[in-house]
Amino acid sequence: MLDQVKFDERGLVTAIAQDAENGEILMLAYMNRESLEATLRTGIMTYWSRSRGKLWVKGETSGHTQQVVEMRIDCDGDALLFKVRQKGGACHTGFRSCFYRRLTPDGLVEDGERVFQAQAVYGTK
Amino acid sequence: MLDQVKFDERGLVTAIAQDAENGEILMLAYMNRESLEATLRTGIMTYWSRSRGKLWVKGETSGHTQQVVEMRIDCDGDALLFKVRQKGGACHTGFRSCFYRRLTPDGLVEDGERVFQAQAVYGTK
Repeated sequence: MLDQVKFDERGLVTAIAQDAENGEILMLAYMNRESLEATLRTGIMTYWSRSRGKLWVKGETSGHTQQVVEMRIDCDGDALLFKVRQKGGACHTGFRSCFYRRLTPDGLVEDGERVFQAQAVYGTK
Repeated sequence: MLDQVKFDERGLVTAIAQDAENGEILMLAYMNRESLEATLRTGIMTYWSRSRGKLWVKGETSGHTQQVVEMRIDCDGDALLFKVRQKGGACHTGFRSCFYRRLTPDGLVEDGERVFQAQAVYGTK
């Protein structure tokens, strides 16, 4: 299967995490080959953090892990879709989904579901 | 709103198209500022084709257009989620979704819904 995945010039492939129960899009991030292999081996979503330059087991700090239910790949192999069971919230801001802002005629409105207080989970900063 | 969008070093932002009715992920592609503005102005999904290097009104050849129902933006502004009404199929292969292949213990299996014959829509090649 890994032969079908087209990693880009940075060695990355785009990964979408979708709630397996209700179809909500939770987040979009990136995987390199190592993180994809770890995800498939452990069944826990493991991304490549571009900002930190290292493997990122989603939820390793917060406990808000994503268990893989299904993996799909698109026609040209440069995007992966994972249906997952999300513990807590996917977004570090405390919302269940990173896509918590909707465009309206009055601009962006925060209408996502808030599931935790970021300060309580990640500590005060 | 456009100030919140973080275009990358190529001037692109990732765009996910999701079926507004059933939540199915239809495709993932890219927009530059011009195509995003066209999408918001016309209400018809307009991407930037990286391979052809030009604006790409999805469905301009096939008639399989995507009408925007809702636009969302993620926490760091580098991914957009569009809920759309899809005419026909999103994928040039004839499947409704580009994510028509699922990973199984036996490898990738095509289990997507086929909605048209590519040859009939795009002509013989």
